[in-house]
Amino acid sequence: MQTVSENACFGGTQGVHTHASDVCGCDMTFGLFLPEEARIGPVPVLWYLSGLTCTHENAMVKAGAQGWAAEQGIALVFPDTSPRGDGVANDGAFDLGQGAGFYVNATQAPWAPHFRMWDYVATELPALLGAEFPLDMDRQAITGHSMGGHGALTLAMSLPGRFRSVSAFSPICNPTGGDWGRKQFAAYLGPDESAWEAHDASLLMADRGFDGPMLVDTGTSDQFLDLLRPETLAAAAFARRQQGSVRMQPGYDHSYFFISTFMEDHVAFHAEALWRD
Amino acid sequence: MQTVSENACFGGTQGVHTHASDVCGCDMTFGLFLPEEARIGPVPVLWYLSGLTCTHENAMVKAGAQGWAAEQGIALVFPDTSPRGDGVANDGAFDLGQGAGFYVNATQAPWAPHFRMWDYVATELPALLGAEFPLDMDRQAITGHSMGGHGALTLAMSLPGRFRSVSAFSPICNPTGGDWGRKQFAAYLGPDESAWEAHDASLLMADRGFDGPMLVDTGTSDQFLDLLRPETLAAAAFARRQQGSVRMQPGYDHSYFFISTFMEDHVAFHAEALWRD
Repeated sequence: MQTVSENACFGGTQGVHTHASDVCGCDMTFGLFLPEEARIGPVPVLWYLSGLTCTHENAMVKAGAQGWAAEQGIALVFPDTSPRGDGVANDGAFDLGQGAGFYVNATQAPWAPHFRMWDYVATELPALLGAEFPLDMDRQAITGHSMGGHGALTLAMSLPGRFRSVSAFSPICNPTGGDWGRKQFAAYLGPDESAWEAHDASLLMADRGFDGPMLVDTGTSDQFLDLLRPETLAAAAFARRQQGSVRMQPGYDHSYFFISTFMEDHVAFHAEALWRD
Repeated sequence: MQTVSENACFGGTQGVHTHASDVCGCDMTFGLFLPEEARIGPVPVLWYLSGLTCTHENAMVKAGAQGWAAEQGIALVFPDTSPRGDGVANDGAFDLGQGAGFYVNATQAPWAPHFRMWDYVATELPALLGAEFPLDMDRQAITGHSMGGHGALTLAMSLPGRFRSVSAFSPICNPTGGDWGRKQFAAYLGPDESAWEAHDASLLMADRGFDGPMLVDTGTSDQFLDLLRPETLAAAAFARRQQGSVRMQPGYDHSYFFISTFMEDHVAFHAEALWRD
């Protein structure tokens, strides 16, 4: 692992690190914010999974999360959204290939060799973080935006006991039912739609739910509402009496101005779960 | 004037607007955050002047200022750092020409026709803002970063009564004494150094000071300390007993991670002056 940069930030350190990923078969870069408390001992960690076209950097510079994480004494990890590099398959569209890993393990050509973001976020990167940084890996929570909200919700429900709380900003809630999902799942997972179901937050919510609190915010002026399908997640969550809140925020769109507005809420929500005994 | 974009943000609106500038002889773009209170009546306004290479956008997306401005009920204006466009002179270096207006009125070729950022920020843009938006132009304050900190300090001291408070993040404090200043003043203002003095915050501080409170933050790990010369401003300010604080922040560098860390302090500092009767 190599440290690319470190900047003092809200009393802690915003780092960027790169490492050779066995899972993805390429170098992967991530951001890690460590609060001041990490100098004394391990701190809880909140994952932030980004959306289409993003790298590790977007949320790190635009979401305004570090100040609230510093206040709560928790770390933030910002993974990239896909494998990258000259030897990695890509596509001309913004919503397929590099920058659009969709947090699945691809089984189809040409994606299968590198596009294994599920294993990367679920297994390889947590092991690296736990080994290299003062993080309490028994205290993890997860959030994300759009495609990253899809990733956060599906990981949280599929790995019971891993995350104490889950939240999302304008997540893709029902990818098997919309064009942000069907296109990518067909490419990465193949035409058999039964293989897609494990990666659909609304189907997972109907099937099993999440064993902790959930917070989901979406803007009423989100330009992608028809692709996000928040109504499917809300219906499934309320049908099973999932604990948590699903909110429509009046006037907000899909941008980081929306995310930063509600970041304080989300970090405080996770901190409550992360610091519980 | 045309509105380029509007995003809901912390209960208010982050807008981007463009207009034909008579002063600069080109179209100019600026960001304007209006807090929720602006729907009811005029609100105070805090100017944020950006540094080298920046446009109106950098601070708008990375400084984390809107949340604090919303809390205080004040507007934020983010001007561009220079005239722009195909017909506008430029230079291959990042620190001269477009993106590096240095908040002066150029008198030398090829810069004189368009590079009039002093008049733009001091006269033309305030008139436009006061006419077009619900802003209380009797309640203005100003801040900035690096080259923008230089701009904020020199404008505040040169326009007594205009700004109730001034602050800066890692400002260029003594441009007549360092390479961030001498190069640009020679290009824009010519070889007669007496013309430079009106644009040097440390010389203005020695000569007249600021008729209100001042807050200046610089990081001890700033990679440009030798160019910023904060010691010259501190010496001049303390010699004349200028009210305010000049702080060195341990471990912080020149980045937006530094700016965002101390933004709450700066906005609260200005709000106190802006809301005073």
